[in-house]
Amino acid sequence: MTLLDLQKKLKKAKYDGFLISRNNLFLEQDIRDDENIIQQLTDFTGSAGTILITEDKNYLFVDGRYELQAPAQTQKHAIEVICTTHISIQNWLQQHMSGKKIGYNPWCWSITEIAHFSTLKMIADADFVPTMLSSETPTIYAYDLAYCGQSREEKVVSFAQYIKDQGFDAFFISSADSISWLLNLRSDALSNTPVFRAMALIDTHCHVWIFSVPHKNKDEKINLPFLSLDDLPDRFKKFRKKTIGADYSNTSSAIYTLAEEYHIQLINKPDILQQQKAIKNICELKNIRTAHLYDGIALCKFLYWLDNNWQGKTELDIVEKLHEFRTKQPHFVSESFATIAAAGSNGAIVHYAPSSKTNKKLEANTLLLLDSGAQYLEGTTDITRTIPLGVIPPQMCEDYTLVLKSHIALSKTVFPQNTTGARLDAIARQPLWQEGKNYNHGTGHGVGCFLNVHEGPQYISASCSLPFSSRQITSIEPGYYLENQYGIRIENLVEICPAQYKGFLKFKNLTLVPIDLRAINKYLLSAEEISWLNTYHQEVFATISPHLTSPEKEWLKTACAPL
Amino acid sequence: MTLLDLQKKLKKAKYDGFLISRNNLFLEQDIRDDENIIQQLTDFTGSAGTILITEDKNYLFVDGRYELQAPAQTQKHAIEVICTTHISIQNWLQQHMSGKKIGYNPWCWSITEIAHFSTLKMIADADFVPTMLSSETPTIYAYDLAYCGQSREEKVVSFAQYIKDQGFDAFFISSADSISWLLNLRSDALSNTPVFRAMALIDTHCHVWIFSVPHKNKDEKINLPFLSLDDLPDRFKKFRKKTIGADYSNTSSAIYTLAEEYHIQLINKPDILQQQKAIKNICELKNIRTAHLYDGIALCKFLYWLDNNWQGKTELDIVEKLHEFRTKQPHFVSESFATIAAAGSNGAIVHYAPSSKTNKKLEANTLLLLDSGAQYLEGTTDITRTIPLGVIPPQMCEDYTLVLKSHIALSKTVFPQNTTGARLDAIARQPLWQEGKNYNHGTGHGVGCFLNVHEGPQYISASCSLPFSSRQITSIEPGYYLENQYGIRIENLVEICPAQYKGFLKFKNLTLVPIDLRAINKYLLSAEEISWLNTYHQEVFATISPHLTSPEKEWLKTACAPL
Repeated sequence: MTLLDLQKKLKKAKYDGFLISRNNLFLEQDIRDDENIIQQLTDFTGSAGTILITEDKNYLFVDGRYELQAPAQTQKHAIEVICTTHISIQNWLQQHMSGKKIGYNPWCWSITEIAHFSTLKMIADADFVPTMLSSETPTIYAYDLAYCGQSREEKVVSFAQYIKDQGFDAFFISSADSISWLLNLRSDALSNTPVFRAMALIDTHCHVWIFSVPHKNKDEKINLPFLSLDDLPDRFKKFRKKTIGADYSNTSSAIYTLAEEYHIQLINKPDILQQQKAIKNICELKNIRTAHLYDGIALCKFLYWLDNNWQGKTELDIVEKLHEFRTKQPHFVSESFATIAAAGSNGAIVHYAPSSKTNKKLEANTLLLLDSGAQYLEGTTDITRTIPLGVIPPQMCEDYTLVLKSHIALSKTVFPQNTTGARLDAIARQPLWQEGKNYNHGTGHGVGCFLNVHEGPQYISASCSLPFSSRQITSIEPGYYLENQYGIRIENLVEICPAQYKGFLKFKNLTLVPIDLRAINKYLLSAEEISWLNTYHQEVFATISPHLTSPEKEWLKTACAPL
Repeated sequence: MTLLDLQKKLKKAKYDGFLISRNNLFLEQDIRDDENIIQQLTDFTGSAGTILITEDKNYLFVDGRYELQAPAQTQKHAIEVICTTHISIQNWLQQHMSGKKIGYNPWCWSITEIAHFSTLKMIADADFVPTMLSSETPTIYAYDLAYCGQSREEKVVSFAQYIKDQGFDAFFISSADSISWLLNLRSDALSNTPVFRAMALIDTHCHVWIFSVPHKNKDEKINLPFLSLDDLPDRFKKFRKKTIGADYSNTSSAIYTLAEEYHIQLINKPDILQQQKAIKNICELKNIRTAHLYDGIALCKFLYWLDNNWQGKTELDIVEKLHEFRTKQPHFVSESFATIAAAGSNGAIVHYAPSSKTNKKLEANTLLLLDSGAQYLEGTTDITRTIPLGVIPPQMCEDYTLVLKSHIALSKTVFPQNTTGARLDAIARQPLWQEGKNYNHGTGHGVGCFLNVHEGPQYISASCSLPFSSRQITSIEPGYYLENQYGIRIENLVEICPAQYKGFLKFKNLTLVPIDLRAINKYLLSAEEISWLNTYHQEVFATISPHLTSPEKEWLKTACAPL
């Protein structure tokens, strides 16, 4: 299938345009490479994007993270890239496609998304562009109680009570990670995310119907009524004229139509499992710390190796070597996303991931931006370090120090309960703003427990009006990027916990890897900032050093030396 | 008219409750004392509040600023005070008055407010509680071009074009300050705000119909078609079946009904004059600086006097003396609000204003919180200083220094264009949050030019999602309050202007009065904060000292000495 094929088909089908989402029917989830229709059609590898096919021209809509990457990866004559930082898809379509017939696959767009297009002439068509689902058969397995800390039964009983309290007869869950969490199930369907991809209907009597693709069942313990996606209409039929709750923002437009067909009242209600899942239990928090210990050991061993071996290596060598160190850790399952090893100017491409086409050699006097993470049975990690190779110019040191100041500003902040992500975001940016600098991405995202590395509902960004609360996990990852020159990002994961003052919260570090001291301009740091850094490095050394060899330990001592 | 009278009337009229707004028909404007129905019924003097009369009980709803003041001023047996920080009026009514008949005067509530109550049984009744309008005849006058910098004709032509562009036949403006600004008119109807209270209808042909109470016209230059409020129906009749724009948030519910009556399509559109007015022109900005020079001189002379004379004085003496110094300045018209001179524990009542009942003597080793402002023909001022009397305890110094750190944190911040008030607010609070402290009011409000001292649309507070832009004016006024002990607030007005970096903004000080050094714990300030303070005091001394007597100048030198 090529853009040209689709354009020809478009003419026949008498559409003026067809809107193609990167999502398959498990909306807003990670996808497999063989399911990535955007990449197949355009070569663009970013993790978000939308294509509009029209008879004479094709468009790729990407967000600010991919403003530089998308035009570099795609062919100018075949596709025009439009950045949604400057104009939303909705507004663009309003301006250019008003009154025109635009087709879309209703399984790949949420009810909310389609509602946003309500002033346009949108036509549901599930066949024009197929729902991209891999033909491989995944294996599913139970996530042990020792890891998840709460039984499936307990979670389902509590959710059924919630459904009852809302006055619904049932709730339809489309979020694969909500279902994975609720049922304590995982699968190998995706290479970096152990999520079990399914939809589920739960009623007030604790009945659970699970709709998924065919899969192997690794575990005899799993005794659940698995149905096929084709069974959806039959099951909905049995709820004829009843009331079902569903989160419109991640329930596909096709489900809405199905509910209408059976006169089911489908009521929009945020998926409460997302909120429950975001607040980790004591068992999960303990395990997550273990995952970060494993990851810290792997990273420190890797960084020691890197210091002695970077010359002559390429980005892909780095990816491979880091993977090697991680695989040696207990309970390592996979990376949590494709490792970003970005040398020199590649670092300025915010969500760059090296490929054979772009693979760059590491060079002296430049920065290596390394953003990676792993899935351990105990939890999910995500860490970015920016490493100076050789001696770097003063301007790089200054920018690196500004990013560090931003990282510390948010890390050490104390804030009232219910402070929104938008307000925390401003606190992180303040040191960069002060010098007229900024970064074109959010400051932090939630992280799952052996689930998605990007997990909602709360996040730290200008647009987040959700409040933060205790026992959530978030990344803190300010950055600075100079096009064609270099990129800097410093990212830790932190746990939110009560501060010493009543009604106030603070962050507690989870990530245990030194922040490179060699790129710091010490004179730009305040005494408080230096003290934060020294305390952090003390903790890193105390926790990680017992697990290292002698030379590695020596290296870590220097890397964690007080400033 | 008493609460008891109204309760009796309620029973006869068969209402379950009647909701009484503090507003008269010039919604969300300052009111005269003889128009203050809330005060007349309950003795509560705060600047915002709502009464609910029911057959057996009365309720006064106030916001966080008045949580302490309202119960102190009102009689417990007659009225129960409910703070809207903990529950909104809307939710309270939902819980307690669902299904009950609640009356309201449609002239005193905006369309938006009434829409919020849509799930309740609300009954419009313009006669039950009268619209409180003073019987005195105000005098109106033209605001000279030398002060306002743009002619009435120019403003009206531009607004008429805007109405046309929106596809409306006319626009109905309810905001008295929008009308005062648009028509360059002022009046003496209110004692502290020179606003001309009127409503106006403007059509695409630059016709302006002004609806107001009878007034004297001081100025022959004013040649405008003034109509009575009773002429509203007749004028609306002439726009039968036409389209009129109106800002629902400040247009009264009665106007909505009037439009319906004549089949006028009344379309909700934010009052753009509010936005235009908030962005000051070059002439206004120049004049406003002059107003701040006058006010700085008056304040410095007063503070010199205070240092030598505070012993034995009361809060009301302070109010009187400060007034005396201000009246000596050129073009002084009035205070811009009732001066808050709060001694010792009175300072913890956020919006306290002294009265003969509460008047307190100034005592050694306490703080005097002094929040005041003035209307000069050149502009409106608003300033708070907290002054240590004698030697104050270390804890007061510490809290004072924290508030100062908050003040400086926001004052010196550089931020991207379009940063919202909510995000700026978090930056101000950060130093207080760090110590588990906070304040229960916003951080800043817009200020008019010889108009309202509190002016929208932008403001600095957790709930403000409006962006800031160049040439706006805002207060910066963090505080800290310890119930029954003391209150601290440090407030300057600032102008927003471009920073040295493209796309970034910063604040430029307008207020020119020393910040009391004697309450500072210097060891809590960073080098950067000390430098900000010293630079500020240099500017104060350089600008104000030439206008002082020798002893005053000596005093100012010490008050502005580098830290």
